[in-house]
Formats: sequence, C-alpha cells, structure tokens
Amino acid sequence: MKSFNPPKRLLLGPGPSNLSPRVSNAMSQSVLGHLDPDFVGMMDEVKAGLQYVMRTENPVTLAISGPGSAAMEMAIVNMIEPGEKAIICQNGYFSSRMREMIVRNASIPVDVIFEWGKAIDLTVLEDTIEAHPDAKVVCVVFAETSTGVQADLKSIADLCHKYNRFLVADAVPALGGSVIKVDEWGIDVLFSGSQKCLSCTPGVSPITFSDRAVERIKNRNQKVMNWFYDISSMLGYWGGNQKRTYHHTAPIHSLYALHETLCMIQEEGIENRWKRHVEVRDYAHQKFAEIGLNTLVPKEIQMPQLHPVLVPEGMDDLVIRKTLLNEFGIELGAGLGPFAGKIWRIGFMGENAHTSNVDFLVNALQQILVKY
Amino acid sequence: MKSFNPPKRLLLGPGPSNLSPRVSNAMSQSVLGHLDPDFVGMMDEVKAGLQYVMRTENPVTLAISGPGSAAMEMAIVNMIEPGEKAIICQNGYFSSRMREMIVRNASIPVDVIFEWGKAIDLTVLEDTIEAHPDAKVVCVVFAETSTGVQADLKSIADLCHKYNRFLVADAVPALGGSVIKVDEWGIDVLFSGSQKCLSCTPGVSPITFSDRAVERIKNRNQKVMNWFYDISSMLGYWGGNQKRTYHHTAPIHSLYALHETLCMIQEEGIENRWKRHVEVRDYAHQKFAEIGLNTLVPKEIQMPQLHPVLVPEGMDDLVIRKTLLNEFGIELGAGLGPFAGKIWRIGFMGENAHTSNVDFLVNALQQILVKY
Repeated sequence: MKSFNPPKRLLLGPGPSNLSPRVSNAMSQSVLGHLDPDFVGMMDEVKAGLQYVMRTENPVTLAISGPGSAAMEMAIVNMIEPGEKAIICQNGYFSSRMREMIVRNASIPVDVIFEWGKAIDLTVLEDTIEAHPDAKVVCVVFAETSTGVQADLKSIADLCHKYNRFLVADAVPALGGSVIKVDEWGIDVLFSGSQKCLSCTPGVSPITFSDRAVERIKNRNQKVMNWFYDISSMLGYWGGNQKRTYHHTAPIHSLYALHETLCMIQEEGIENRWKRHVEVRDYAHQKFAEIGLNTLVPKEIQMPQLHPVLVPEGMDDLVIRKTLLNEFGIELGAGLGPFAGKIWRIGFMGENAHTSNVDFLVNALQQILVKY
Repeated sequence: MKSFNPPKRLLLGPGPSNLSPRVSNAMSQSVLGHLDPDFVGMMDEVKAGLQYVMRTENPVTLAISGPGSAAMEMAIVNMIEPGEKAIICQNGYFSSRMREMIVRNASIPVDVIFEWGKAIDLTVLEDTIEAHPDAKVVCVVFAETSTGVQADLKSIADLCHKYNRFLVADAVPALGGSVIKVDEWGIDVLFSGSQKCLSCTPGVSPITFSDRAVERIKNRNQKVMNWFYDISSMLGYWGGNQKRTYHHTAPIHSLYALHETLCMIQEEGIENRWKRHVEVRDYAHQKFAEIGLNTLVPKEIQMPQLHPVLVPEGMDDLVIRKTLLNEFGIELGAGLGPFAGKIWRIGFMGENAHTSNVDFLVNALQQILVKY
C-alpha cells in the first residue's frame, strides 16, 4: 500500500465538481475538537452561509455528516410517520430513490408518475393533491440529475400552500446553481449535496427545515425510527444560540471546506452565481449545436447546470467517455436507467461553470468524434 | 464571512486526535469522480487496509460516509429486525446510545446493566444469554469512551459462539489502538470511527460484517427500514470484484485521508501500534501518579488510549480545561452523564500516542493546578 496520488481531472459530469484551491486548502488545516469554541463559532458561520445560499432565515439550517442521499432520508423520516401517506412526484432516478425511502419508512407513497425526461405536470399533481387530503407531505426532486429536468418548484410550492401541504424538495444538484428561494417560495424542507454547484468535498450535506416543518416534527405521534436521522436530537448540537451539546463528531475538515466555499459564494453573490450558470448553459447549448449534439429535453425545462446530451447515432458511449477521460482528463456522467448508453450527463457546476470549460470539452469531443 | 483559520490545538481528549501532515495533505489533493477507475482502485486499497487493521478477511469491509454513530446504527438496523430481541450490555454513554437505536428500530432490548465505570460481568451476561434463546444478537461497546473501560471482547465472543449468537461490537475509539482480532475472535460486526486511534478526519467510518452476518442479513424477513443504511444495496458500490455501480457519492477527500492513514499504519505495523498505545498508557499512569492524579477505573479494565482521570478535589473542571485550552492549546474531554465535572477524559490516540505529549500535558497541568 502506497500513498495515493490522484490524477488531475476536469469533472464535467453530474458531480462532484472540481474544488477551488481555496477549498482544497481549507481541508488541510489543522483539526479542532467538535466542541471547541473556535469550531462552533465557525459552525455558526456555516449556518449563516447556508441560510444565505438557500435564501432562508430558518433557524434549523445545518449540514449533516453524510451524502445527499442521507439528507434525503433525513427529510423523509422526520416529515413522514410510518403509516402516513405522502405524495411523491416521479420523473427520474432520484425521485424513485425518494419513493423507496418512503416505503422503507413504512409510509404510504401516493405516486404521481411521469416519464423520465418529462416535466412534472402541475394539473396532474393538483388533482392528486386534491384526491388525497390525508397526504400531508408532497415530495419532489427539484433538479433531477438523471435527466437534466428541473421542476417548477415555485408553482409546486404554491399548490402546496393552496391545499395546506408540506413540501419536501431535493435540491442536491441545484443549490448554488439554480435559483432557489426557500422562504419566498415557502418550501418546508430542502436538502442538498455539497459536491455539485457548491463545489465542496462530498460527505457534508445541507438541509433546512421551516418553522412550520419543525412544528410538525414536534407534534409527531412516534419518534423517528432512527437515532442519527432524528433532527430533534441533532439540534442540541446544531441548534443555535444555546450551549452546544455533544451529539456526534462533526466532519471537521469537510465543514472547513464548506465554510470556505460559502465564503466564496458570498463574495461572488448568489444572484451572480445563478446568472453565471445560466450564461454557461446557453453558451454550451450553442457550442453543442455547432458540433451536432442535441439534448434529451427542451431547454425550457432543463436545469442550468446539467445537460442531458444525446450520444450521437452510431457512437459507442463508453468508448467516447473512456477516451475523454484517458486522453483529456475529462469526466462526463453516464446515463442512468432507460438512458444508460443513450445520454451523457454533462455538467458545468460551481467552479466548473465557465465558458472555457465548454470550449475545452467541445474541442476534445470534436477531436474524438471524428475518429470513431 | 471570512476564511477560517483554525488555531493549532493538541487534542488530548476522546477524539478527534491530531492528524499527521501526510493525512492532512492527502485531503488537499484534487478531486476524482466516485466511479473513476483510479478512485475505485484506491477504494480497493482502503478495504485491504481496513482488513489489515481489523485483522479480518471479511469481504464486506468498508468505510461509510457518516460518523461512528451512523456506523453503529447501520450495524443495528441490518443485524436486528423490528420485533426481534437483542441483548445489549450497558455500562456507559455509548451503550445507552446503542440501546436507543435498538428501541428506535422497533426491536426489543434485553438489558444487561452495569454501573458506569464497571466492567461487563461475564457471568451475568452468560445468564442473560442463556435466559433469552430468542435474542440472537449481542451488542457490546468494546471500548467505552465515557468511562475508559474496555470490555473483554474475546471472552464475550467466546460466549456468543457457545450459545450461537451474533456479536456486534462498537470499536469506535478502539480501532488502531486496542488489540482487535475480528477473525480470530469471531466478531460478526465491528464498526469504528476514523478520528480516534486512526487519526484521520471524522466523517468516514469503518465497518465490517462476517460472512455469517451477511448470510443472516440475506435471510431477513423484511428489508432494513432505511435506504442509506441497508448494507445489501451499498455492496453494489463497495462490494468487491464486480463492476461498481452508483449508490451514493463517496466522501472522496475523507477516503483519501483514510487511505493515507492506513498506509501509515501498515508502515508502522499494527502490532507495534498496539504496543505503542500500551507503553504510552503506562507512562501516563506513572506521570499522572507523580502529580497526584488518579483514574476512575482500575488499570486492568482501562483501554490503552483513554484515561478517565478524576478531577482533583476542590478543582473546577471547566476552569482548568479552559486554561489548558487557552494557555497551552491542549483540549481534554469533559466527563459525560454521572461523571460530568468529575473526570477528565484524557486520550493519547493514534498520532498523539507519544510520551512527549504526556510530558507536555503533565507539565501544563502542574503549572495550572498550583494556581487554583
């Protein structure tokens, strides 16, 4: 066993994205105890930074030690009790995962199913909400990385308010790239990952709960079926002004990294960052078109940070991706489920959302595609 | 919000411990995708390294994205089904946590209770095992950081074999410091943390399942109540020889760090590392005695890496710890539960298990104790 020296890659898939040297450097700083006054002071700033990026003042805003999927499961098991119904919009891989979590939790999924790659039809959703007054929670994937489709989250939130439901939204690839306004739109629970448009190390996942959601959790009939996922007990550590009490050992260095990336987002300004992602998407659309590449979904429903590009007729998905990786050091994402081998998932996320990366990729693809 | 520059601390509590510069440096390396061939090659080495440290050939040996408590819960929810009985030995804070997880999982805890700070009495345990033939799983905290007590894990494993039970062992502070022989002793599930005697960053937690345990999980009547914790589905990503399939985004940089720390342990030799921890413990005992400090538990049942030192009569726990932190940059652990304010938890773990750190601490304590 020898020290590992990773090769340099440009990660243009669905995440992780590349880290700024500032963020990488933050991770090599010296360790602090998880109850050290300096460390918990930094945690307060992480919370404030997350509130800024999420556009919320929710006091219950934190980053959990685990991947985005653990944050997803935390949202589900806190908001939905066993035996309760929940509406789950499904149009891709990650909404299926959320459904699976609802089932595992012994809750009852009320399915609203659309084809992969299609948008969530608001009329169908409204009909379902109306038909199930006992389904108090609506779950939706805001930006579905398996297809590139972004939901109209604001309108879905409006529907939830109209029928007095709670909205749980997956923003794993969205946060820091797509426009998100938790408070203005009235989203009850929103979670994300760190390694996509935040360009941080994976394994520390932001989540926020509205006061209304916290109230619902306080009034549960039974405890959450997990110790670690139970937000009520985690709040002693992350909760805010009162004395921090031990819950688990926080991922110290990953939180340093998150802190630094949040600093950088504040410096850039969140609106500027949203704008940058849209500009790069539009530029990429134009450049892809120039070399004859098409996308799976219409631009109107595509998220800014990820392109579901159709593998050109007659080309071998795997051969092209391997060549890109080995000859150019570029990683693209493979298709999932029905789109395996049929699309590339090309992301320009966070640190990688720059037109120069579009140019570099398009140039590389041009050189490769003529060969095969 | 400004970049965070943590002060330098010497962490002589129950963990985290300080990282080697090699491990810190590993975390600042460039990111790879979680399915990159170079990355999954490194994961194979992490597995081999963990097998070496745990002294096991279990194919199901991995590091999860989460704290040691998440690994604890993963062990519980996979090994014990809702409605099933499980024996839980309790003599400290972390065994109470494990019990709570059993209850949350709708399983039935069979309590074997000892006072905090006391060893697990094997006769009492055997009587309980005998009295509950339907309790197929025995849970035990090997090294209890709330009290410093280390269990006789080998004898407990022998008991489990005698009565054909499964043994789940918490080795969070133990791995890399205490003698652990998973295969030789026949432990079914053992989990740990990264930030104690492994001196790695927190948030990536080793766990291993014996073939017997995997067989039990395969024959469950119902699925694990969580998606993320279900070891069966995680194995597509961590499982070994077959093609890796996406499950969640691994904590890339934390795994770099774990890889590097495992390299260093192999270089040192695990037996030498165990020996080093015992030598430092014995040295610390002698030095503590010289300045009149006593420990809560007899040396025979104390783990090598953590000392539960009694706060001297008339001294204010908090004042002393604050002074140590502010004037010497040394962090000690506070007492938990009934020992809050009554003991200091002093750890010499992993990178910090050197007699020079004992000297530095004892010297600092000498200077402070005369003042108050």
